[in-house]
Amino acid sequence: MKVLVLNSGSSSIKYQLFRIDDWQALALGLVARIGEPEGEIKLSWRDDADATQARQESLPIPSHEQGIERIIRALRDTGVLTDVTELAAIGHRVVHGGVRFKQPALIDDTVIAAIRAVAPLAPLHNPGHLAGIEAVRAHFPGVPAVAVFDTAFHQTMPPEAYRYAIPETLYTEHQIRRYGFHGTSHQYVAKRAALWLDTPLAQCNLITLHLGNGASATAIRAGQCVDTSMGLTPLEGLVMGTRSGDIDPAVVIYLCKHLGLNADGLDRLFNRQSGLLGLCGVNDMREIDRLAAAGDERAELAIAMTTHRLKKYIGAYYAELGWVDALVFTGGIGENAVEIRRRACAGLERLGIVLDDARNAETHAHGERDISAAISDVRVLVIPTNEELEIAQQALRTVTGTTE
Amino acid sequence: MKVLVLNSGSSSIKYQLFRIDDWQALALGLVARIGEPEGEIKLSWRDDADATQARQESLPIPSHEQGIERIIRALRDTGVLTDVTELAAIGHRVVHGGVRFKQPALIDDTVIAAIRAVAPLAPLHNPGHLAGIEAVRAHFPGVPAVAVFDTAFHQTMPPEAYRYAIPETLYTEHQIRRYGFHGTSHQYVAKRAALWLDTPLAQCNLITLHLGNGASATAIRAGQCVDTSMGLTPLEGLVMGTRSGDIDPAVVIYLCKHLGLNADGLDRLFNRQSGLLGLCGVNDMREIDRLAAAGDERAELAIAMTTHRLKKYIGAYYAELGWVDALVFTGGIGENAVEIRRRACAGLERLGIVLDDARNAETHAHGERDISAAISDVRVLVIPTNEELEIAQQALRTVTGTTE
Repeated sequence: MKVLVLNSGSSSIKYQLFRIDDWQALALGLVARIGEPEGEIKLSWRDDADATQARQESLPIPSHEQGIERIIRALRDTGVLTDVTELAAIGHRVVHGGVRFKQPALIDDTVIAAIRAVAPLAPLHNPGHLAGIEAVRAHFPGVPAVAVFDTAFHQTMPPEAYRYAIPETLYTEHQIRRYGFHGTSHQYVAKRAALWLDTPLAQCNLITLHLGNGASATAIRAGQCVDTSMGLTPLEGLVMGTRSGDIDPAVVIYLCKHLGLNADGLDRLFNRQSGLLGLCGVNDMREIDRLAAAGDERAELAIAMTTHRLKKYIGAYYAELGWVDALVFTGGIGENAVEIRRRACAGLERLGIVLDDARNAETHAHGERDISAAISDVRVLVIPTNEELEIAQQALRTVTGTTE
Repeated sequence: MKVLVLNSGSSSIKYQLFRIDDWQALALGLVARIGEPEGEIKLSWRDDADATQARQESLPIPSHEQGIERIIRALRDTGVLTDVTELAAIGHRVVHGGVRFKQPALIDDTVIAAIRAVAPLAPLHNPGHLAGIEAVRAHFPGVPAVAVFDTAFHQTMPPEAYRYAIPETLYTEHQIRRYGFHGTSHQYVAKRAALWLDTPLAQCNLITLHLGNGASATAIRAGQCVDTSMGLTPLEGLVMGTRSGDIDPAVVIYLCKHLGLNADGLDRLFNRQSGLLGLCGVNDMREIDRLAAAGDERAELAIAMTTHRLKKYIGAYYAELGWVDALVFTGGIGENAVEIRRRACAGLERLGIVLDDARNAETHAHGERDISAAISDVRVLVIPTNEELEIAQQALRTVTGTTE
């Protein structure tokens, strides 16, 4: 049996197919530009000789429904899927589950209504997810589908971590609070870290840093999330590719008043024109690294700000947790950016965090690895994330009613 | 000789008179409701027998100039000041000095123009300061006057601490960056802490927490400020009496879009209706303490959020600094709120921070004191702040051209 994982956006669907026996990824791909005159479908898969094959096709894909149909057809054509009856579950990534979803949910009318109800909190994501979910229901009503939420892992936060110090009615009537995102990734690497530590997750205190184009930090006490850096939206917290992260909220008001920006202009400024891009004109960390090494002062500032902010969160979460077993780096930057990890951890000896500089600098290392020095009280781990696998496994457990 | 310290607001002037010999405060008072039909002047002073006397008078005070004149007349009438020629200096508190003022400044036309130039960054404060400064110049042109800036102490921050991750032009063209406030208070308690530690300030790493109705935290490395929690304005950072402190900037945008709030409405909401007041309807910490002890859940949440945020900043600044000699509590709440100090420091043993619970709980203790346990690596000090004294001393040093 197999599990298909779907991440539907407003005009695209990413997908990945897993075999349950060994959780091998058999195929992955993308349907792009849904609704445009010329769409595209990409697929790469392993053939019988275990070699990677790829194919790509351009054609109009007028709807999410036709996108799903194309995905299934492509998987069948290449032989990695014989029939939809082979699918034990379809797992849908859903960014925002509000306060309702603390666990993945078997999709029915009620669940769909609940995802729709919190769409104003994730206007760029939930509507696209819903389109994908509806398309699957319409086309493959017999396959059990599960929604796996980016916010769910963070629902264990205590009120002092998830509330904001604003009038109570904004929370009670408008649901304004910290939700947190990237939960599936934080949860996945936390489980992997517990295996590394050879300690049950329920006994582990961890700080997990998911550093990609979006970035977030999470404080995990006894295996449960107790704080996270993203908030009502994925804008709060760390310095990101194009997002500001933390800032005096009065800056938003100042720009509204003095530069005449409206809500849409502010949204664009803080979400798309800020972060690394705003600081140095580039939001690819590899390129920033090269520029900084060549003496570019703006690139150097972008790195200094990224690592300064990271260090503050490491310290803040260490203080919240009281002690930490492991600090985990994941995401494209977390897994690959030697200099970011080095500077984020520099000078933290008193917190028991000491890197092994040589291990940290192994640029061609892949896979899970410990980059801390032997004397480090806190293990510093690099763990490549795999949200799709986590979604696939959570979806299957939800369908079969099993626990981990 | 004496020094007069003035804190001019838009419709009030607070003042305090110091004797240089022993820096004794001889008198302090307030001129209130300037420009209203009925104003008021209050004065309390020590008489020859060292007893505290007080008087109060209601009368119209049409302008700052007449307010200053009334202050001098009242000081003369009560005998604490014989003549303005006795004043070696007048020290003006000025909230915002922008990037220009790293030190106090002898007031001249250029300095006044510079204070006016940054008034958009402190619209509630700098115009009132300027009214007071102009009034003194007009009325007592012979007395040297000095501006002492709340922002000056923070001007040693490195760019990674003072820049925000937003487009560079907002910094270069609009001066949007972290400035920090309460600098005079942080500087004063840092100096006092160095005396307690019996170590030159230039060798001290400190975290200072100024907790009043406004609240801010500062990281001090080798005697110099390297980070602070307030930002472009005094809104960022800790949970305050009526201010939100840190929050997802997207919350501001969300309220602008979905609740139709404009800049003034947002300003009012985040600066005046948030913080402790927004959370539990009360912004007096003593009252909140009583309510929480009586089982009020909203008051308990307000305390939990205040201390949770404090703990995060202690951890963040500890990580930034690498090691800390002393943690200093000051301001009305910092000096008096036993429960806030206890909970902010609870569980920080791994950072070497251990309170002596009995010393912390001495509610009738006054003056500077060490409330840490003997085993604590980090001294935890309570140091009553005295911004007026710091302003008086900085003003005199500026006038006489001496250094500390």
